Amino acid sequence: MSFLNGIAASSGIAIAKAYRLVEPDLSFEKKTIKDSMEEIARLHTALAASKSELEVIRDNALKKLGEDKAAIFDAHLLVLSDPELIHPIENTMKNELVNAEYALKETADMFVKMFEQMENEYMKERAADIRDVTKRVLSHLLGVQMANPSLIAEEVIIIAEDLTPSDTAQLNRQFVKGFATDIGGRTSHSAIMARSLEIPAVVGTKDSTEVIQNGDLLIVDGVRGLVHINPTPEVVAKYEEELNSHEIQKLEWAKLVNEKTFTADQFFVELAANIGTPDDLEGVINNGGEGIGLYRTEFLYMGRSQLPTEEEQFESYKTVLEGMSGKPVIVRTLDIGGDKKLPYLSLPEELNPFLGFRAIRLCLEQQDMFRTQLRALLRASSYGNLKIMFPMIATLDEFRQAKSILEDEKQKLVSKGEKVGEKIEVGIMVEIPSTAVLADQFAKEVDFFSIGTNDLIQYTMAADRMNERVSYLYQPYNPAILRLIKMVIDAAHKEGKWAGMCGEMAGDEIAIPLLLGLGLDEFSMSATSILKARSQLRTLNKKEMEKLAAEALKMGTAEEVVHAVKKI
Amino acid sequence: MSFLNGIAASSGIAIAKAYRLVEPDLSFEKKTIKDSMEEIARLHTALAASKSELEVIRDNALKKLGEDKAAIFDAHLLVLSDPELIHPIENTMKNELVNAEYALKETADMFVKMFEQMENEYMKERAADIRDVTKRVLSHLLGVQMANPSLIAEEVIIIAEDLTPSDTAQLNRQFVKGFATDIGGRTSHSAIMARSLEIPAVVGTKDSTEVIQNGDLLIVDGVRGLVHINPTPEVVAKYEEELNSHEIQKLEWAKLVNEKTFTADQFFVELAANIGTPDDLEGVINNGGEGIGLYRTEFLYMGRSQLPTEEEQFESYKTVLEGMSGKPVIVRTLDIGGDKKLPYLSLPEELNPFLGFRAIRLCLEQQDMFRTQLRALLRASSYGNLKIMFPMIATLDEFRQAKSILEDEKQKLVSKGEKVGEKIEVGIMVEIPSTAVLADQFAKEVDFFSIGTNDLIQYTMAADRMNERVSYLYQPYNPAILRLIKMVIDAAHKEGKWAGMCGEMAGDEIAIPLLLGLGLDEFSMSATSILKARSQLRTLNKKEMEKLAAEALKMGTAEEVVHAVKKI
Repeated sequence: MSFLNGIAASSGIAIAKAYRLVEPDLSFEKKTIKDSMEEIARLHTALAASKSELEVIRDNALKKLGEDKAAIFDAHLLVLSDPELIHPIENTMKNELVNAEYALKETADMFVKMFEQMENEYMKERAADIRDVTKRVLSHLLGVQMANPSLIAEEVIIIAEDLTPSDTAQLNRQFVKGFATDIGGRTSHSAIMARSLEIPAVVGTKDSTEVIQNGDLLIVDGVRGLVHINPTPEVVAKYEEELNSHEIQKLEWAKLVNEKTFTADQFFVELAANIGTPDDLEGVINNGGEGIGLYRTEFLYMGRSQLPTEEEQFESYKTVLEGMSGKPVIVRTLDIGGDKKLPYLSLPEELNPFLGFRAIRLCLEQQDMFRTQLRALLRASSYGNLKIMFPMIATLDEFRQAKSILEDEKQKLVSKGEKVGEKIEVGIMVEIPSTAVLADQFAKEVDFFSIGTNDLIQYTMAADRMNERVSYLYQPYNPAILRLIKMVIDAAHKEGKWAGMCGEMAGDEIAIPLLLGLGLDEFSMSATSILKARSQLRTLNKKEMEKLAAEALKMGTAEEVVHAVKKI
Repeated sequence: MSFLNGIAASSGIAIAKAYRLVEPDLSFEKKTIKDSMEEIARLHTALAASKSELEVIRDNALKKLGEDKAAIFDAHLLVLSDPELIHPIENTMKNELVNAEYALKETADMFVKMFEQMENEYMKERAADIRDVTKRVLSHLLGVQMANPSLIAEEVIIIAEDLTPSDTAQLNRQFVKGFATDIGGRTSHSAIMARSLEIPAVVGTKDSTEVIQNGDLLIVDGVRGLVHINPTPEVVAKYEEELNSHEIQKLEWAKLVNEKTFTADQFFVELAANIGTPDDLEGVINNGGEGIGLYRTEFLYMGRSQLPTEEEQFESYKTVLEGMSGKPVIVRTLDIGGDKKLPYLSLPEELNPFLGFRAIRLCLEQQDMFRTQLRALLRASSYGNLKIMFPMIATLDEFRQAKSILEDEKQKLVSKGEKVGEKIEVGIMVEIPSTAVLADQFAKEVDFFSIGTNDLIQYTMAADRMNERVSYLYQPYNPAILRLIKMVIDAAHKEGKWAGMCGEMAGDEIAIPLLLGLGLDEFSMSATSILKARSQLRTLNKKEMEKLAAEALKMGTAEEVVHAVKKI
């Protein structure tokens, strides 16, 4: 028995077989063949196998992910039967007497190169289709297994180098019991995704894809950050016991699902959820979320080949607003750029994308895209309790510009007779140090603040939160961070506004007592953290936490703060 | 007549002919030749021309830049006469009947590839030598002119895409009257270099290398950020007049060279200089610097193939300390990483190098390198008034670690009987928001602060200062920045310590009244800015500036602040 150490990215324990979401080795040698007919037959067998595989995947995608995603596989099927691709491959085998693998790759590469050089976006996409299909056919020729996440039909733990949003979009939540990835940290996408899907995950294991084989029995321990590989029956038994008591604890927490969140001394705070898509609503409601504290609209823009239309966006926003039945829904406008790229927006490569042209910076320049989103939001606003939030605001000017664009679109809609919510609160993410430091000035103009700790910490400490070598500087409990949070909350309260938090810190056991003490009004977290946080908050005395927070603000290091919290 | 707009990076006006520091077009076609003897003769003519060119460059480098830099050109000369390279080129021409350009490039590429694949560092360098020499010989074969900055013998304005530290190391300060570059901002290396060399510069002109030809008459207007190309005589006359009155103003300022810096109401502040090498000392003294506020030791580590020895460092530090005759010299320990790479330290590629593994973060891990520098500093300390400053401190822990390593080395030296300065102040750069916010805690343990505004601004605003698309967010006058500066100064004073500033902002006309009002004790800037700043400070009333600063701290935007300063 062996195990891997990693970063506990999503709490809980999962026991299941490994499923490697890893590109297989598709290397081969060029061979001279004698019988080209035999080789052509091999090719056609592989083509047929690829076809039936793709048909199953297409049907699955259609059922679970909708037409948009299924269309990708329809395009792949078209490639598979395109004589303009197949004939040249056959000819290469006949004329050059080379093996099918080589003939396929040579021909496909030529087409890929040709299509890629075209200016036309549609043609460029065809290059990607051909590349994907070639891999699949090659896998059949070589007798290796492609990872087909959408075909998973038994409980598995996904092993991958990293998971992209489009990988996770293809996963069937019913069967995926846990993740383990080679890279990433607590705030990488795989980690956030795992928490949002409510499944245990360990990231940054460095070599899970090296040492774990398909079918290995795994235990993902998302509490301690461990992945056990083919554990002994004793270890399995121990974890099953823990799993049971965790289930019992969850049943206990589940009793709080319809409760409001009051502290031991009867102060009220609001517990909301961070979501990525309308699909996440069910989890929010099942976990007793009192609102949506952060709706990340990026996912609407990802894994597609063009901007979503106003109509598509309107439908998504409306679904979420209606689904929350009048509870507050804070929608963050597009936060793209940085590590989040869109293939159809040709953004320049940047030396430091986290300090670059992203989010509101991009939206204020590419106003068409921004205005489309704002119109969709304004039109959806009459279906619920919408609040709009701008990301990455660094200066008052940026907020004023963004707000005036919003007002402009509102006026236009109203003058066309469209129904627009009467009182839409407009706030900002506080995730840039300048904005925290100047929060008193912002508080006069915004309706609310939501502190985005993931970015606020990385900028305040000048440490990329995805960079393992400086991960020691990602310090949520550093007194400097607590002071900035205090500045924001105090500034809001002084102007009669409210302050929330939608970073990872809001759901963190150690941070919650401090945040309560600092006066935070709203805590927005992964839906799965809500009941646990509610249970914790019910035991805390706000007046005492105020004293704790006041002490922490005077400390020099994060270690001292953690020590003080652990004493309570 | 036409002109280019850019960013005014170094003040002043220069009028001279353009010199393009741009790699020429060395492309050629493969040709079949008839007479290989004739082609071999062409090759040897080009080799001879390259040789005499390189000899002049080598001699120049030896005179002006020292043996270390001249050795590079000795190595190039060796390559030029190496039969192991020349014979294969000749053979290729004889056997394949190809032109000299093609034979040279083919053969050289083969050697480059071979050497590059060797593990041995010396061999890898030979690959670089062959590549450089090949370019030079090709230029002679093709009859195009290589840029040979070290051969410049008349007054010129350098036109380049960008200037690297090694480019500028080769420039003869006597003849280079100005710079214009395509890329860069006010805090890019070319800009800092131009100010340190006291020559006017306009950066970020976008297409200076496109539109300007060698020999064009240029006016670099480093006040307004303009580059005039072949201006009319009227424009030249206008600028010459301005140049004259600027000279008169400089004569006026020069009277202040031996004065202390007192405000109109007789408060004293210290004006120090930022330097990169001991060569910069002359400028500091000529411009009346009262100390060195920032000695950037990176330059000692750059443009070489291995770490500088303790002895080499000791000599440099001793030279500077002795040269300043007891005036304070603040040495910043190695600030490498980020945009500053060292070829012989294999640092990992990072997605966001400005938020990465650099400066003190690197030094605390690679302690051998750090300890060598500290020993050299400690040993030099008895030759003057040394203060040591650690860069990129984000947490109190980091400062404590760095300081304890320094103490450790000090004890070891003392116990060996080495002479070490008695009272060496140990301070930190404040360039990370967390450190500014927590300055009161740091102030209990450090001897001084020096605010590094270039980085502090970029982290506080979360905007890469080298990225043109977010340059609007590089806001030194943003009230958030002023508040952080105030936190640092107040924290220092409360503990009886002093606070200086060594970022670009310290020498900025608009910033100076605010910084005086905020209570800054020491202003460290490019030597060339000192007399102007002294002249400005003598006119300012500190008590009034305190009121101005207090108002600015309550403002919402940088524009309001600038407006308020301009009213005084």
